[in-house]
Amino acid sequence: MPTYQAHYQAHTNIALIKYWGKRHSDLILPVTPSLSLTLEAFYTQTQVEFKPDDRQDSFILNGQVQDPKATAKVSQFVDHFRRQAQVPYRVQVTSQNYVPTAAGLASSASAYAALACACNAALDLNLSRRDLSIIARQGSGSSTRSLYGGFVEWVAGQGDQSETSYGQPFADADWDLAMVVIIVNQAAKKFSSRWAMDHTMQTSPFYPQWAKQVDQDLAHIKPAILDHDLQTIGEIAEHNAMSMHALALSANPSLCYFQGESLTAMDQVRRLRQAGFLAYYTMDAGPNVKVLCPYSQAEAIRQRLSQVFPLDQLIISRPGPGPFSLEVNPA
Amino acid sequence: MPTYQAHYQAHTNIALIKYWGKRHSDLILPVTPSLSLTLEAFYTQTQVEFKPDDRQDSFILNGQVQDPKATAKVSQFVDHFRRQAQVPYRVQVTSQNYVPTAAGLASSASAYAALACACNAALDLNLSRRDLSIIARQGSGSSTRSLYGGFVEWVAGQGDQSETSYGQPFADADWDLAMVVIIVNQAAKKFSSRWAMDHTMQTSPFYPQWAKQVDQDLAHIKPAILDHDLQTIGEIAEHNAMSMHALALSANPSLCYFQGESLTAMDQVRRLRQAGFLAYYTMDAGPNVKVLCPYSQAEAIRQRLSQVFPLDQLIISRPGPGPFSLEVNPA
Repeated sequence: MPTYQAHYQAHTNIALIKYWGKRHSDLILPVTPSLSLTLEAFYTQTQVEFKPDDRQDSFILNGQVQDPKATAKVSQFVDHFRRQAQVPYRVQVTSQNYVPTAAGLASSASAYAALACACNAALDLNLSRRDLSIIARQGSGSSTRSLYGGFVEWVAGQGDQSETSYGQPFADADWDLAMVVIIVNQAAKKFSSRWAMDHTMQTSPFYPQWAKQVDQDLAHIKPAILDHDLQTIGEIAEHNAMSMHALALSANPSLCYFQGESLTAMDQVRRLRQAGFLAYYTMDAGPNVKVLCPYSQAEAIRQRLSQVFPLDQLIISRPGPGPFSLEVNPA
Repeated sequence: MPTYQAHYQAHTNIALIKYWGKRHSDLILPVTPSLSLTLEAFYTQTQVEFKPDDRQDSFILNGQVQDPKATAKVSQFVDHFRRQAQVPYRVQVTSQNYVPTAAGLASSASAYAALACACNAALDLNLSRRDLSIIARQGSGSSTRSLYGGFVEWVAGQGDQSETSYGQPFADADWDLAMVVIIVNQAAKKFSSRWAMDHTMQTSPFYPQWAKQVDQDLAHIKPAILDHDLQTIGEIAEHNAMSMHALALSANPSLCYFQGESLTAMDQVRRLRQAGFLAYYTMDAGPNVKVLCPYSQAEAIRQRLSQVFPLDQLIISRPGPGPFSLEVNPA
């Protein structure tokens, strides 16, 4: 029997092989597969409650009632589950993002993963994680990878068949591994990632090479992950990330996610390597820099970086788990 | 009769369609054609004197006697002319670069163009400008474009035939046109352009697309130049430059010529456009940013930029001439 309520926690993920470009905009079907690491330190907790007596959906994020536009997006996403459960009830969604304020780290990945899991449990749908990742994907592409912990692959799938494109666990990450996230202060995003991807696909002279590059990078990073070969993983991830930024830079007009502090951060990582650390950077569609390194070196790396960045802009995370249920008092 | 001495001035040039990659390293034959604008404000004056009684070549740059390595490079270049003239005499080369100190603007383009012209005159070889551009090219690729004023094309040529790759004038630039050079302070170069190009060719997944991109950009910029259509020229030049930097960024390991101030400068140029100015940026293998704009707007643009950069780092240049002879007292 549905309890009509559930409370889930899901973690964000950082792609080591990037997702950049959709072959189907509405369904969010990607041009290429991608591969990520789920992080422990950044997550969303989401409680859903389906309420027979309410007249409309409501959405509270970080203690703030959200405006109709944000609420409508959540409603539309929850409709996937209401349709399957054949339940017409309105929903109250209460979310808390555990991402440092101003971090600018994408919270949509953990948000949609947590929401999908909570809806599934509240409505007793018993959907598989794979099915949930297919639904989560349609809320935010990268959330499809947050349905699992450790290293996760987002399978690109075929044609416009939604059910062929999902997250799947590739390998656990319970070895000597961490990320140090360098938070670069940013103003509000100048443009959405969704627009930026489409713009890149349409105007970059180099985009036709991207799929081939991702295939090669995936083929080489996978055995390195299985071997716990952090140097190879890092080198491939760094090159893949810079290739993605190169695509954006070669769009017309050009898109650049680097800020001065991002350049400083990447330079510091190169210096760390010269000093003997195993440290590699990656960047997403924003100015923050994430440093892949052994967990055993993470605190020393953080201390070195603190010569240039304030300590509270340097956050260490271990690899994180897939979504899990938080205690809910039964109705 | 040779006077055995000559004094020439040649100007630097800024590529609007970039040169990035050699198909023949020793002869400096490029993978693609390129197209530049010669600048008035940055030039080299070079005096050569062939001296029957001297035992060795000497090279004085900006008043400083140069070390054997720099002198050997000049000697080797002058050998092209000594061979043709069948003259064994040692040479004294005295050069002055009129490029602001620490500008980091490539002076090799103007340097080799001036040296080639001076050797030709001193030895009375009567080589054509095209022949001189072929020789200059072998000293420094981009110098092949400094043999002419205004807009100049460097024809890529065929195979490993040196004589098929030369500079040729494309169009004059005596209309409402200027560049504002934003000098970004830089440390010494981390790597040579020569190495960077080879590294990019060997490791960038996107390099195979570059030649096609240059062909398209050339095909579109040429009619725009003939039409004095600065907006189209600027948009193509900006995209071409960012594509070149994208290639470098996608090399493995990645190469990045941006500094924080470069990002600031490019952002300022985008703001200038929003404010109604016709301003477009280009960047070469270094952190300086060059802004293509109407000469009639250049001073206003410089004043706007001076809110962010010191005035002495903002240099306006009109288009410049090809090399010309400076007065020399006959022997």
